[in-house]
Amino acid sequence: MEYKSAVISIGNELLIGKTINGNMGFLGSELAAMGFPVDVCEMINDERDAILESITRCWEKYDVVITTGGLGPTEDDITRNVIADFFGKKLQFDDEVWEHITKMFKHRRTKMADSNKVQAMIPEDFTVLRNDRGTAPGLYYSEGGKHFFALPGVPAEMTHLFNFHLREILKDNFDDISGMVQQDLHTFGVSESGLAEMISEKELPEGAHLAWLPQTGRVDLRIYGSDMEALKAAREVVVRKAGEFIWAIDAESPAAVLLDWLKERKLKLAIAESCTGGWVQKHITAVPGSSEAYLGGVVSYSNESKMKLLGVKESTLAEHGAVSSETVLEMARGVKELFDADISIAVTGVAGPDGGTEVNPVGTVYFGFRVGDKSFEAKQISSGGRDRIRHRAAEAAILFLYNFLMDE
Amino acid sequence: MEYKSAVISIGNELLIGKTINGNMGFLGSELAAMGFPVDVCEMINDERDAILESITRCWEKYDVVITTGGLGPTEDDITRNVIADFFGKKLQFDDEVWEHITKMFKHRRTKMADSNKVQAMIPEDFTVLRNDRGTAPGLYYSEGGKHFFALPGVPAEMTHLFNFHLREILKDNFDDISGMVQQDLHTFGVSESGLAEMISEKELPEGAHLAWLPQTGRVDLRIYGSDMEALKAAREVVVRKAGEFIWAIDAESPAAVLLDWLKERKLKLAIAESCTGGWVQKHITAVPGSSEAYLGGVVSYSNESKMKLLGVKESTLAEHGAVSSETVLEMARGVKELFDADISIAVTGVAGPDGGTEVNPVGTVYFGFRVGDKSFEAKQISSGGRDRIRHRAAEAAILFLYNFLMDE
Repeated sequence: MEYKSAVISIGNELLIGKTINGNMGFLGSELAAMGFPVDVCEMINDERDAILESITRCWEKYDVVITTGGLGPTEDDITRNVIADFFGKKLQFDDEVWEHITKMFKHRRTKMADSNKVQAMIPEDFTVLRNDRGTAPGLYYSEGGKHFFALPGVPAEMTHLFNFHLREILKDNFDDISGMVQQDLHTFGVSESGLAEMISEKELPEGAHLAWLPQTGRVDLRIYGSDMEALKAAREVVVRKAGEFIWAIDAESPAAVLLDWLKERKLKLAIAESCTGGWVQKHITAVPGSSEAYLGGVVSYSNESKMKLLGVKESTLAEHGAVSSETVLEMARGVKELFDADISIAVTGVAGPDGGTEVNPVGTVYFGFRVGDKSFEAKQISSGGRDRIRHRAAEAAILFLYNFLMDE
Repeated sequence: MEYKSAVISIGNELLIGKTINGNMGFLGSELAAMGFPVDVCEMINDERDAILESITRCWEKYDVVITTGGLGPTEDDITRNVIADFFGKKLQFDDEVWEHITKMFKHRRTKMADSNKVQAMIPEDFTVLRNDRGTAPGLYYSEGGKHFFALPGVPAEMTHLFNFHLREILKDNFDDISGMVQQDLHTFGVSESGLAEMISEKELPEGAHLAWLPQTGRVDLRIYGSDMEALKAAREVVVRKAGEFIWAIDAESPAAVLLDWLKERKLKLAIAESCTGGWVQKHITAVPGSSEAYLGGVVSYSNESKMKLLGVKESTLAEHGAVSSETVLEMARGVKELFDADISIAVTGVAGPDGGTEVNPVGTVYFGFRVGDKSFEAKQISSGGRDRIRHRAAEAAILFLYNFLMDE
């Protein structure tokens, strides 16, 4: 059986655009994997009527309903009260929860506020989901085969409660779930419509579905369904049709794939960045254990630092400019020597909004690579704003190198 | 008058957690500022019934309804058809749109797919919102004083259509809108409940509202409402109560504030990072024109690079370790000299999941600063995973320095 779930994200900050709803990203992927795919996510204000209306609609329609947000200590946190009213339960002060909150504050060596007392008010017949990451406990209630969870909105606390309580509770209560299986085939160098031209869901075996998931600068092909055999057959079809663009299957990130490859060969990497200003290195160092294959790098934002640290020649900068394939190749060579690395990446470009020229309009980025004593280069032109141009370039730097290493 | 709007975010990728709904962030903040605050955002699957149900509910209740997503060329993009059916309009092939799509492909030098033809199908009586960033045109329809917009899901295209079409259309159609005014007072060094203890919405003048917006490692206080005078008075109350923790008002980012301060004084910055691995520099270089005050920096991930590039003494590393205030101060001194900067930041710590010790458990981060010939340091202990620890440290590095400069 497959069950459906609904997520209600509560909080003014989500609707006025101050906070991006990252919680939904986590819940969506975890619940789908567990066999309770999210069918709807309603983002609403901390307003009594809105919360009541949303819970009423979802509780009627879905097997699992999860709210996030509105459990904090401030006066706009009203989720707890509305839930109690909806289920017709009284709020009761819970000594054990209060003791836990007191301990949390002691541990953090922060002064506790009186307002935190409301966080110990629990609707009767509800189960408290102990929160070891913060002061707002989660709340759980079950009735007529349906399951209701209220979780705090702070991402670290929400994921903690999901992992330590919800998984267990859902598994214990549904013994006939058949989790969705899914596989992501990551592509690079082809557009969404290009892929749609190559392959269609109609060509896949029955029971296998296909989704095109555009990332920044690349597209993932997701195959999903509950029949493992259909999925395997579907993967073969997709690989046959679009294999030349697929660089990995179910990878955590381009950086993780590259680092695994380097670690296996005990090779060391160094990076020099200009326009991406640290973003490529942020990707690399986001991977736990990256220090085994990553030595470090330089953000050479000024021409002086390109010359002094990386040994880019003054004549190269004068003749070709800082944004050129000549400069980026010297940067790659220089940073490899500086860190005594085996392989290096270098990036330079025009992220805008200013600085564009006829030769190098805003969005032009040059990539230089040095692998042993071989050099190669790549160029990318992106549209969009500064953030998008940098984001695309930061991942492309890693994928250009990885594809080159695979081809060799 | 204030009007209310609804956003319907369409796409399986949003519900299976593959894509975070960043579009809602943009629309939420822009629409609130224009006087059409978003009252609900429904995230739903690319399914006929779900889309129909959602549009029916929102079109009845709200003045402005915006859908995003499902206008692409692939077979799961059905928004266009469902909209045509809901409003009882036939789809017609639009030659002008087709010509525009053809041009876009030529410009990109990409092979056009036949599937793109569906993107030129427009419901009769709808206005085409020309898309200069992609192949999916936006769609606009108005009836009975209500306004319906269908926008593509790709963020760059969505924001482009919003800025170039929606703003104008909404302004032309509502001459009595009174935009929400809002002001963000950014705090650092105090918790959400700490702030809730200091100040409550009840203490503010009527017409002014208060929201606590937790960021990663800091909290913003937002004052909002439609009465400018009430807002000014409210700001005075908030500054009187929590002024010591406020580092800026309506700032773009900590990095932008620091860079402005440096530029005014013609001072130059350099940065050395270990555990944050480029993230501090990514923040700094995200600001357009940062090169005026930012020279560059080093990601010294290995001990060798800390010694060789930054001049950290072997004895310091041996005696105190790479994660210590002694090392971080030498890193700060070293990177300042290396780049011949006026001011420097250095960061070292344990981002986890491994590498924690009794003295420095996972989450411990040391910050070193060098301002002229003065040094100072700071330390932060964060809970949560690798990503959260690095994220908190990257912004804290900038804010510790900025607060120090303000105090001097």
